[in-house]
Amino acid sequence: MIAFAILIFLFLGSVDGFSTKSQSCTYNPEKMCKPALATAIFSTVSFLLGGLTSVLSGFLGMKIATYANARTTLEARKGLFESITGYGLGGSSMALFGRVGGGIYTKAADVGADLVGKVERNIPEDDPRNPAVIADNVGDNVGDIAGMGSDLFGSYAESSCAALIVASISSFGIDHNFTAMCYPLLISSVGILVCLITTLFATDFFEIKSVKEIEPALKKQLIISTVLMTVGIAIVSWIALPPSFTIFNFGSQKVVKNWQLFLCVGVGLWAGLIIGFVTEYYTSNAYSPVQDVADSCRTGAATNVIFGLALGYKSVIIPIFAIAISIFVSFSFAAMYGIAVAALGMLSTIATGLAIDAYGPISDNAGGIAEMAGMSHRIRERTDALDAAGNTTAAIGKGFAIGSAALVSLALFGAFVSRAGISTVDVLTPKVFIGLIVGAMLPYWFSAMTMKSVGSAALKMVEEVRRQFNTIPGLMEGTAKPDYATCVKISTDASIKEMIPPGALVMLTPLIVGTFFGVETLSGVLAGALVSGVQIAISASNTGGAWDNAKKYIEAGASEHARTLGPKGSEPHKAAVIGDTIGDPLKDTSGPSLNILIKLMAVESLVFAPFFATHGGLLFKIF
Amino acid sequence: MIAFAILIFLFLGSVDGFSTKSQSCTYNPEKMCKPALATAIFSTVSFLLGGLTSVLSGFLGMKIATYANARTTLEARKGLFESITGYGLGGSSMALFGRVGGGIYTKAADVGADLVGKVERNIPEDDPRNPAVIADNVGDNVGDIAGMGSDLFGSYAESSCAALIVASISSFGIDHNFTAMCYPLLISSVGILVCLITTLFATDFFEIKSVKEIEPALKKQLIISTVLMTVGIAIVSWIALPPSFTIFNFGSQKVVKNWQLFLCVGVGLWAGLIIGFVTEYYTSNAYSPVQDVADSCRTGAATNVIFGLALGYKSVIIPIFAIAISIFVSFSFAAMYGIAVAALGMLSTIATGLAIDAYGPISDNAGGIAEMAGMSHRIRERTDALDAAGNTTAAIGKGFAIGSAALVSLALFGAFVSRAGISTVDVLTPKVFIGLIVGAMLPYWFSAMTMKSVGSAALKMVEEVRRQFNTIPGLMEGTAKPDYATCVKISTDASIKEMIPPGALVMLTPLIVGTFFGVETLSGVLAGALVSGVQIAISASNTGGAWDNAKKYIEAGASEHARTLGPKGSEPHKAAVIGDTIGDPLKDTSGPSLNILIKLMAVESLVFAPFFATHGGLLFKIF
Repeated sequence: MIAFAILIFLFLGSVDGFSTKSQSCTYNPEKMCKPALATAIFSTVSFLLGGLTSVLSGFLGMKIATYANARTTLEARKGLFESITGYGLGGSSMALFGRVGGGIYTKAADVGADLVGKVERNIPEDDPRNPAVIADNVGDNVGDIAGMGSDLFGSYAESSCAALIVASISSFGIDHNFTAMCYPLLISSVGILVCLITTLFATDFFEIKSVKEIEPALKKQLIISTVLMTVGIAIVSWIALPPSFTIFNFGSQKVVKNWQLFLCVGVGLWAGLIIGFVTEYYTSNAYSPVQDVADSCRTGAATNVIFGLALGYKSVIIPIFAIAISIFVSFSFAAMYGIAVAALGMLSTIATGLAIDAYGPISDNAGGIAEMAGMSHRIRERTDALDAAGNTTAAIGKGFAIGSAALVSLALFGAFVSRAGISTVDVLTPKVFIGLIVGAMLPYWFSAMTMKSVGSAALKMVEEVRRQFNTIPGLMEGTAKPDYATCVKISTDASIKEMIPPGALVMLTPLIVGTFFGVETLSGVLAGALVSGVQIAISASNTGGAWDNAKKYIEAGASEHARTLGPKGSEPHKAAVIGDTIGDPLKDTSGPSLNILIKLMAVESLVFAPFFATHGGLLFKIF
Repeated sequence: MIAFAILIFLFLGSVDGFSTKSQSCTYNPEKMCKPALATAIFSTVSFLLGGLTSVLSGFLGMKIATYANARTTLEARKGLFESITGYGLGGSSMALFGRVGGGIYTKAADVGADLVGKVERNIPEDDPRNPAVIADNVGDNVGDIAGMGSDLFGSYAESSCAALIVASISSFGIDHNFTAMCYPLLISSVGILVCLITTLFATDFFEIKSVKEIEPALKKQLIISTVLMTVGIAIVSWIALPPSFTIFNFGSQKVVKNWQLFLCVGVGLWAGLIIGFVTEYYTSNAYSPVQDVADSCRTGAATNVIFGLALGYKSVIIPIFAIAISIFVSFSFAAMYGIAVAALGMLSTIATGLAIDAYGPISDNAGGIAEMAGMSHRIRERTDALDAAGNTTAAIGKGFAIGSAALVSLALFGAFVSRAGISTVDVLTPKVFIGLIVGAMLPYWFSAMTMKSVGSAALKMVEEVRRQFNTIPGLMEGTAKPDYATCVKISTDASIKEMIPPGALVMLTPLIVGTFFGVETLSGVLAGALVSGVQIAISASNTGGAWDNAKKYIEAGASEHARTLGPKGSEPHKAAVIGDTIGDPLKDTSGPSLNILIKLMAVESLVFAPFFATHGGLLFKIF
């Protein structure tokens, strides 16, 4: 029965992950020329569907929960627990494919297409003569949209699970207060509504009329949805929750008031906004950080890289403080339940966040298609303008993804510790400390693997593109058609094959550590990977984003300063291109993949916690 | 009385730091042409002197300790404690100047000299017409030798202090067993002897006759000293220690056997060797990792940077496992005393490590002087060969410095926790967790600052060098002499001025966190900074080292593969030069400076622990 429930949830989790992905992939390039509207609707609807299945499966889980609660308490709860963590594990496993596999796919195609096409053959980007051009365009969707969608969906699934589990065994569940138990699902549902309403602000209330208005409108979307959501949370907290209730946090109890829970969700929500805007500040070329990076291209690629790395490091500071404050507030008010709902709060406006994020890649792809189809110059100009606006806002979504991943994995970590039956995770014990330092090392190992994967996959692509240029007569002249399908196949095969080592690291580490070193060391590993991974993820994403926009800043030449660095092909521009290429795997593969590392390890440990607690720690038992 | 003792120790610590630095800076370029001999002797003697003053001050401390023990127990011990931590703080503060200031000095001069000289004016390296050439050469000493020396001295001073404090209040001290109490000092003393004997292997027993023999001989030095030291530790442990004794670890007690303590020191010693050789494997161009990086230059600077970063990330894995194993063994056997003596074990062969490390910069400088003095081509060829041999071994010392810094700060962290009177550091409390995640962010903040400091200082240097080329007539023709002194002054002033922000971050963080958030959050910050800082320090140092040697590999063209990438000035070589320039601040400034961050924050927290414990945590007291 329990195994069956796990299977169902695993399946539901995977299907949700897939549906979010496939919906994200469907888009209509024609619509792109009507700016914000199409994107916003597309993304919101896509997320709405994903969110609805999520809410539905959640309700199913809740029904099982009340059923379990009404019956025998302990065993039924254990069963419920195992089945509902399966849902999280399913969502997260899909995210592994989406983020890591997708990241490798897109960058293999991108780097492969650029290195041979732009550098060796000197043909422009998105030129239909380039055999890898289709793979490159597909990759933009696979990595930047499907990857992001499945990653965020994983966070959604896991934080909902974590919150629902605590809710079901707290005084809500025991009193059979179904509405209060559904609080996490209500937050998500309100979020979907709020984001739908927010869309109307860009499309109907203040219709966008010129290209210049796009960027501020996109940013305004986020602020509007956050403000509306704050009201929404207040209403839900007031209606759905009793004024005071007891949270059973596996062992300990905590009396929580409804306004405290409102604050938990609210602090997560606003932390997300702050992280989003800080990310934007450090990666948009409208502000001084990216302009300084662009300026450093004057003295060559080396100073560009040094300044870019320093920018990435610096951009970590405020987001970490924002995360720390939300953790402190929600942890203090409602322990792990607080963390889980704070994560849901951060994710509640994510339909808007995803719309903003998807805007760039969609416009980019539309531009690519216009270029390949030989459409009029005017269309390309328009899509370029849209792309530029989208680029400055694209980084915001990454900030959300990382911030919520941190909160989610902390909530899962707390659930794991409770479930494994350890009362404290004391850094000053050798077992925990070695876990902590090794855990802090894992993101480096993982990043090294994903970066190498991109390298090898790109190399295969380069060879194939070179082969086609050399063997297909008339390709360069445009009289013969390249073999696009083989390039797509290479990217697909490579992304799946190259995903195995990093995937194995993520999946095997909790199993090996738990089995041989026991739950104390494993909890050290989870904490270490979490606190270290968040930093690398933020800095890698922002460094890459900054280089990308520094290059675009020089290319656009919109200001007096930018014109002194350009035009395209100048020495500073060449230096900027090098930075952009370095940033590609950092911002689209290795950086965001770390979200998966920290979340998947935590949820897997949670699922296996009872096994590790009883049978784990073999090595210490022998010696 | 106590304040006076603190002052004395602070002074002694600083003088030791300085003497190690100034001795390291004195060298005779003429001697350089007699290979390994001069370097090895120079460094060993320099470290011997530093070590002797350290041992002497240690004995003085021990005398105070026994004196204190013989009198009233609690108050006198507190006094002893405060005075001896002052010694550690003194040593560490000097290291801040040496490492951070020195790192900024050397890279400002280096980058400044290269950007104008090599890139803009197209004159060779070390050309006397370059106004920054003297500053560049001085910088090699200030950063690579004095910085390294003072950093390692700081580790020495701190681990001795940590071990002596525990010893003085353990059963050794209470039984007035002076020899057993001196165990940490005996380890260091035997280390100096062992390194002196080891030197003879290179100079007398198996005299080096050709350039080819240098590199294996340098590496053999490390193995010989480690093997000899293992014997030395066994003898000292057997003679100086009673078979069984009680370690008082501030609150808890632990019965330790003498063979267990031998294992603690031994595991540290051998972990150091492993870290050294892994570092060498990842940064020497004799092995595949650096050759792969060099090979990636074929496709341009971007792939070079991506492969270099991935290499740095990957190189973290084995050192972290080595550190984790030594922590686990020594922690399990003898708690914080075990960690402290493991650190001393790792540092005991450091006279040899430093000799190997200093070899490269010394030969480099000798070559620079030969170039500037217009000496015969033969001399330059010889120094280049010496430089190449030294470069492959130079990274080893950095590995030692980072590994020992990790152990030392853990020992200090343990002492801090005990002294602050907290029994556990539970990750699953909000106060500790926010400390952990913010602490893990500090190395990024600090690195961003040091990298920016190098950037601004280099910019000032560039402006001055440009000014001189433009305003001094006959400079390019070699008929007029440049104003070297101004460039030296710029580097000196900049290094001290630019050191203020990162220095303030290190010094103020423990004070602010301790005062406003209390000891729990501070212990989280220390643990977070430690586990995250070690990783960045290792990866940054190794990435930089690998790029440096990848460039040298292409330039030397010693193998079939290397010749396909060269010669100097080819496209792959240009890409390699870009990587090398990026690596400079990473490997010589921001990376090694992190050692200081983690050590200095820990020792400062230790000194102020009683204050924080009584008066700290203001913010939580108010709310």
